[in-house]
Amino acid sequence: MKNKMITSRDDDFAKWYTDVVRAAHLADYSSVKGCIVIETNGYAIWEKMQEILDKKFKELGHVNCQLPLLIPESLLRKESELVEGFAPEVAWVSEGGDKKLDERLCIRPTSETMFSDYYSTHVKSYRDLPLLYNQWCNVLRWEKETRPFLRSREFLWQEGHTIHATEEEAMKETNQMVEVYHWFHNEILAIPSICGKKTDKEKFAGAEYTLTNEALMYNGVALQAGTSHYFGQKFSKAYDIKFTNQENKEEYVYQTSWGTSTRMIGGLIMVHSDDYGLVLPPRIAPRQVVIIPIGNCQEVVDLANQYEQILNQNHITTYIDDTNKSIGFKFAEAEVNGIPVRIEIGERDLKEGEITFTRRDTREKIKATLDIDVVDYVSHLLDVIQHDMYERAKKRRDALTYEAHNLKQMEEILNTQPGFIHAMWCTDKACEEKIKEIRGCKSRCILEGAKPIDDKCVCCGKKADKLVVWGIQY
Amino acid sequence: MKNKMITSRDDDFAKWYTDVVRAAHLADYSSVKGCIVIETNGYAIWEKMQEILDKKFKELGHVNCQLPLLIPESLLRKESELVEGFAPEVAWVSEGGDKKLDERLCIRPTSETMFSDYYSTHVKSYRDLPLLYNQWCNVLRWEKETRPFLRSREFLWQEGHTIHATEEEAMKETNQMVEVYHWFHNEILAIPSICGKKTDKEKFAGAEYTLTNEALMYNGVALQAGTSHYFGQKFSKAYDIKFTNQENKEEYVYQTSWGTSTRMIGGLIMVHSDDYGLVLPPRIAPRQVVIIPIGNCQEVVDLANQYEQILNQNHITTYIDDTNKSIGFKFAEAEVNGIPVRIEIGERDLKEGEITFTRRDTREKIKATLDIDVVDYVSHLLDVIQHDMYERAKKRRDALTYEAHNLKQMEEILNTQPGFIHAMWCTDKACEEKIKEIRGCKSRCILEGAKPIDDKCVCCGKKADKLVVWGIQY
Repeated sequence: MKNKMITSRDDDFAKWYTDVVRAAHLADYSSVKGCIVIETNGYAIWEKMQEILDKKFKELGHVNCQLPLLIPESLLRKESELVEGFAPEVAWVSEGGDKKLDERLCIRPTSETMFSDYYSTHVKSYRDLPLLYNQWCNVLRWEKETRPFLRSREFLWQEGHTIHATEEEAMKETNQMVEVYHWFHNEILAIPSICGKKTDKEKFAGAEYTLTNEALMYNGVALQAGTSHYFGQKFSKAYDIKFTNQENKEEYVYQTSWGTSTRMIGGLIMVHSDDYGLVLPPRIAPRQVVIIPIGNCQEVVDLANQYEQILNQNHITTYIDDTNKSIGFKFAEAEVNGIPVRIEIGERDLKEGEITFTRRDTREKIKATLDIDVVDYVSHLLDVIQHDMYERAKKRRDALTYEAHNLKQMEEILNTQPGFIHAMWCTDKACEEKIKEIRGCKSRCILEGAKPIDDKCVCCGKKADKLVVWGIQY
Repeated sequence: MKNKMITSRDDDFAKWYTDVVRAAHLADYSSVKGCIVIETNGYAIWEKMQEILDKKFKELGHVNCQLPLLIPESLLRKESELVEGFAPEVAWVSEGGDKKLDERLCIRPTSETMFSDYYSTHVKSYRDLPLLYNQWCNVLRWEKETRPFLRSREFLWQEGHTIHATEEEAMKETNQMVEVYHWFHNEILAIPSICGKKTDKEKFAGAEYTLTNEALMYNGVALQAGTSHYFGQKFSKAYDIKFTNQENKEEYVYQTSWGTSTRMIGGLIMVHSDDYGLVLPPRIAPRQVVIIPIGNCQEVVDLANQYEQILNQNHITTYIDDTNKSIGFKFAEAEVNGIPVRIEIGERDLKEGEITFTRRDTREKIKATLDIDVVDYVSHLLDVIQHDMYERAKKRRDALTYEAHNLKQMEEILNTQPGFIHAMWCTDKACEEKIKEIRGCKSRCILEGAKPIDDKCVCCGKKADKLVVWGIQY
């Protein structure tokens, strides 16, 4: 029986999304327009994301630090492209401690300026390089239209900022980090993502180029996931980040930045969840298994406790729901919260030597005999779920991936069932603008080195050799 | 040989402190007045603090969430005492997205208002209670005079906010959390702290009472550490947080909050460090052991690798310094960064069947034979260091703890060598004001239930039965 709090996904996708967010206690609106409360279930997913990414970043030599929330206006204005890109969407602090400030301070929308300012006084020699810094923090962008997780005025993210002695090394870092996000999406979030390069129009303000991961939601709308930017010497020249190289000459550093955010919680919902609520891939689920004892005979209680203990000992996050609620309520709650595996232990089943496992993703019930090795059994089941969820998402993505050779085809696709559209592009910005007129469709990324599917631009028909993925975006 | 970057602690304590902060790469000033950059070594300590406290909070049933950074002015003004306490030191956002806002938003100095607002729409019945929430975040207070970690306009902290169905339960929580901080200071940070109750003058704005931990720095100045506040129904009445109790009657919830911050990094420095740089208790040190190979003969390298591997496997955080720097430089660097144990492995020593351990806290060198079980040996050494650091800090604290029976004695102490002064108090605010005139000395806390040391107030001489600890504070 479907959850009554949740609108059907096929009836109204937008409403379904916010219903799932609310029903699974992931986030709620707050008294501050455009800002959300990340509720306990949502925050637990973010903690898990942080744990996994932070470990990976550190394995690759990155270290964490924390820079100020506020940026003096004069500092922000040193790099003109960044200012132009972000100025319309920042919040300004103009009073502090009951006094008007001499200079406005902006709440960070991103921290390239602050890192550049810091680096400029901390680097002297090539021996100091590279510096591979990252910070986990909140940022603010004064968005007009907001949606929980996907677009919110304040959000949580990590921003890596690195500086290097050579262009080659910095480019390698840019590549490496987009690959880390790719791994994270595919292996952990079970969200198939495409890596590519942003067009100049869509790249990050101030970047020489931006590498991106693009994912497709269930409804065929694209979500820009982790991005990685190469800045070359743009910021180092604007902020004077110089070092003495091995030839004892002064040189500007080469810089990168890369980030991902709580927006990916929105991605998880939009790719995997259903009319019964949240569905989480086991590797990102804060709680992987719920045990629901049915009745309270000693045998049932003992087995529940035994399973809980041995599963947790083997790093499978497990809890028993032994609250006073009805069994039906417990089932629905585990379901709406997206617990990947539910184990029911009942007196009658035990007598027949059986227990029941239920997969959240397929809602399939599986009977098992009591002689199983529960750790092996559940580990395997979680792996299967993780694998199947990825495959299902990929199948959906592939089914919504099209080719277009002219604008008419593009329009048809976008007006029928949007998705990723592969089409050739001549590199003219005017064509991007024109395509955007069709339901706001934008270039998602250039598939560099990919085999052309045509020799003409999908828009103007002129010679084209860039294969681009297009789509409507969140 | 003492570190040349660091002023002697006995010559100029304030300068010594900032020298250690800078030399150990804990923090640096930023381009934003009053805000610091928490550098990588400082942030690693904060990560360790978070890891230990977060685990403890969760064991006690607390869960994390994240509320907005910005608070609408009207919401803040609902509880008058809180506003009066914090209004002079908040920063206001008045423009967002290129437009003047209809209502000013304040950057959170603390989040009682936001949690109260959230709770008011999420609690219906006693079955929903208690809610035991915590958040790790940044807050802003527009301080006039700042000092890295100790008092900074922006700082990182955790703030727990809980609501309960009964007064008794909420008071129990208030007590429990001040005890958690007490445990954290004593057992983890090796900082002996006193638990007590703040006077009405010194309690948190809006609280019915505040429990506090007070620590004494090396120079005899007090530092208020983790505090825990009981609000009763003050906020629940102001923000309308009602629930239906077991008798089916509407009632206001009982509320607490408790917090600790990056300020404790400052405490660690001021209690333990010396003229050679940072000294860290092993339980909070992000890196506990450094191995410095001397020379690069295979035997030395192999043993260094073997030790590193086995120590890390046994959860003793260890790294090898195999950089190109000179041995002297490596020693000084490990020292200034406060790595608790240094292991030197040299070719000559190996031939004699020896290796050298150096304790950071005492700078004592200890020769050991090669047949030791290195894990047992280092574990034990770390325990001894942790224990000794606590005992040394306690001895210092006790030596700087005095009794005073009249103002003259108090003045003498504060003008000679300040510390904790035990003295009786009549509970009159006027006496607190008068005592404050002596070098800004304030009541640190009331030692409830402690044996009186006199029957007269230290200030006015009237009847007094409260034993209070007084001191100059950071």
